[in-house]
Amino acid sequence: MTQNILLLPGDGIGPEIMAQAVRVLNKLKTDGLDIQWDTALIGGCAVDETGNPFPEETLKKCRAADAVLLAAVGGPQYDSLPREQRPERGLLAIRKEMQVFSNLRPAVVYPELVEASTLKPEVIAGLDIIIVRELVGDIYFGEPRGIEQRVTENGEERVGFNTMIYNETEIRRIAHSAFKTAQKRNKKLCSVDKMNVLEATQLWRDVMIEVSAEYPDVELTHMLVDNAAMQLVRNPKQFDVMVTGNMFGDILSDAASMLTGSIGMLPSASLDANGKGLYEPIHGSAPDIAGKNLANPLAMILSVAMMLRHSLNQTEAADRVDNAVKAVLAKGYRTGDIMTEGGIKVGTVEMGGAVLAEM
Amino acid sequence: MTQNILLLPGDGIGPEIMAQAVRVLNKLKTDGLDIQWDTALIGGCAVDETGNPFPEETLKKCRAADAVLLAAVGGPQYDSLPREQRPERGLLAIRKEMQVFSNLRPAVVYPELVEASTLKPEVIAGLDIIIVRELVGDIYFGEPRGIEQRVTENGEERVGFNTMIYNETEIRRIAHSAFKTAQKRNKKLCSVDKMNVLEATQLWRDVMIEVSAEYPDVELTHMLVDNAAMQLVRNPKQFDVMVTGNMFGDILSDAASMLTGSIGMLPSASLDANGKGLYEPIHGSAPDIAGKNLANPLAMILSVAMMLRHSLNQTEAADRVDNAVKAVLAKGYRTGDIMTEGGIKVGTVEMGGAVLAEM
Ligand SMILES: CC(C)[C@H](C(=O)O)[C@@H](O)C(=O)O
Ligand SMILES: CC(C)[C@H](C(=O)O)[C@@H](O)C(=O)O
Repeated sequence: MTQNILLLPGDGIGPEIMAQAVRVLNKLKTDGLDIQWDTALIGGCAVDETGNPFPEETLKKCRAADAVLLAAVGGPQYDSLPREQRPERGLLAIRKEMQVFSNLRPAVVYPELVEASTLKPEVIAGLDIIIVRELVGDIYFGEPRGIEQRVTENGEERVGFNTMIYNETEIRRIAHSAFKTAQKRNKKLCSVDKMNVLEATQLWRDVMIEVSAEYPDVELTHMLVDNAAMQLVRNPKQFDVMVTGNMFGDILSDAASMLTGSIGMLPSASLDANGKGLYEPIHGSAPDIAGKNLANPLAMILSVAMMLRHSLNQTEAADRVDNAVKAVLAKGYRTGDIMTEGGIKVGTVEMGGAVLAEM
Repeated sequence: MTQNILLLPGDGIGPEIMAQAVRVLNKLKTDGLDIQWDTALIGGCAVDETGNPFPEETLKKCRAADAVLLAAVGGPQYDSLPREQRPERGLLAIRKEMQVFSNLRPAVVYPELVEASTLKPEVIAGLDIIIVRELVGDIYFGEPRGIEQRVTENGEERVGFNTMIYNETEIRRIAHSAFKTAQKRNKKLCSVDKMNVLEATQLWRDVMIEVSAEYPDVELTHMLVDNAAMQLVRNPKQFDVMVTGNMFGDILSDAASMLTGSIGMLPSASLDANGKGLYEPIHGSAPDIAGKNLANPLAMILSVAMMLRHSLNQTEAADRVDNAVKAVLAKGYRTGDIMTEGGIKVGTVEMGGAVLAEM
């Protein structure tokens, strides 16, 4: 049966890097993979065209697809729009609508790119961790929320508020996802919370411990979020799989990816309960270099590999793409963001072409 | 008029490092500084003796003091106590009761200790930033909070929740504190929020912008918290003063201090509206090395210097202490945590003695 992919190029460098992903998909299709794809709008370009950063039609197409590939959204021209029209709203809406609660964010250091990190080589060489971030709950979506005029001890004034909230079911399903991820790797899971201050994360820790009974082969540890932020800097290789809530995951996974020194290289997967997923590079839309053939398409291409692996069950094709990227790096091809001495500097299209040649 | 200092040695290595701070205070007093001090219980030792991590008597003494010097609280033997009795509760209570809303956390790299960092020397040499963290509001204290049995779409289950909340007044006072701090330095202030998702932090940004009108000499910029976590790793020297809420400040300031590679060196100040303050090293109680004469007393001693400067208005005495610490480092004295090749390894007491000798 033909598998359906939805492509969401989005804004900024999005369309350029998506074009390289499409070349990879075309190659796989030509070589016999039974896939087809459609395209839809999200983010700023969707606002421009429809007034809505996540139009109804895009939602429909998401529902019909077996997997969704997203490039990037956002740009300075949208910053002054009302909250509901900002491109990020499109991102939050697609996550919530698709119920992709499990966001897998690998932070991997490629041997060829060790020097790109601001950390000492011995601290990050061989780094290969994955952060499992809960993606559709927490203070991102909690109610009540807002800015209101209220009477306080200081008289009448504005008050801003949000709600950090998790129920057992939400914690349990991300726990299972994280434990399963750990089982496929080194069987070490570190859950990050702030249980010494926040009750919401005390429940998080309690449920993690409960679920761990079903995974006796996985070693579960706990760490407070402030300490986790320190330990990622001090000794990131102590970790294998980390699991945390939406808010802490946002902060820690960005810190972790920057440790690698090459966020232009990092893909991510966000999965629902049935393995259907949303795949995207972790980098943003980089409006400053958009349209200049400067963007690194490798995180986008590696997102294709993650999609093949996690949603389409095409392990062989996934390996083929992953290996092509490794080969390209080994041959010295570099976009500007990962350029090192002795590298062969190429643009977006040339990098895509190099991957294709290796396939 | 004699100035009154309250000493809170606390738990773990607390008493040992406080003893070295007291030697410094004694020296200053002998040399004519008009100070006296008293001692009280906080944290685990307070629970042991009174059942309360922040006893009424300690609160009374805090109120009577011109400044409070705290070493560290906590230890594994207290982890299984009920929430209200945990040592951290004592810490949160003293902050709230003293209304020390402005927590100044410097992250400074000493030239002699550049190599102690996991970051490359060129990235952190000369680093000197200060994070101004709001300390008595935010999700740390927001209501409603708790863990409750509730009926949800999944049936009846436990739900954990906390409230992130700031009112204008709270944001305005920390803004003034941060702008004033920036005025005394390089006149650059970066405010960190997550306004693209959280309304509470949208109000934060709005008020920061409003207050900035009163400080035309300070350049205000804004950064999202996930990006801030990345930028601290990528290029920390781009910052001078950062200001953020209690929760984000907890995470970012710990990450920032670990960049320096020597958190045993970093003091902090928490100030109320009148400049009265609570001074403490940013490191913890390190129960594993307690009582072994291994702890680094320099962060504690530098906290004395901060206290002299910010609450007691004794700039000269503060400089004297700061310079003594610098001299000791220059002479090569090192406790285990900051030991580098060619250093002279010393214990807690010897390090205190070395500082005294330099004074
Ligand atoms: C753009 C923003 C809403 C988003 C988030 O906070 O989740 C982004 O930072 C991310 O991590 O994907
Ligand atoms: C111990 C804990 C309650 C405290 C906090 O979260 O504020 C600590 O991490 C700190 O930063 O002083």
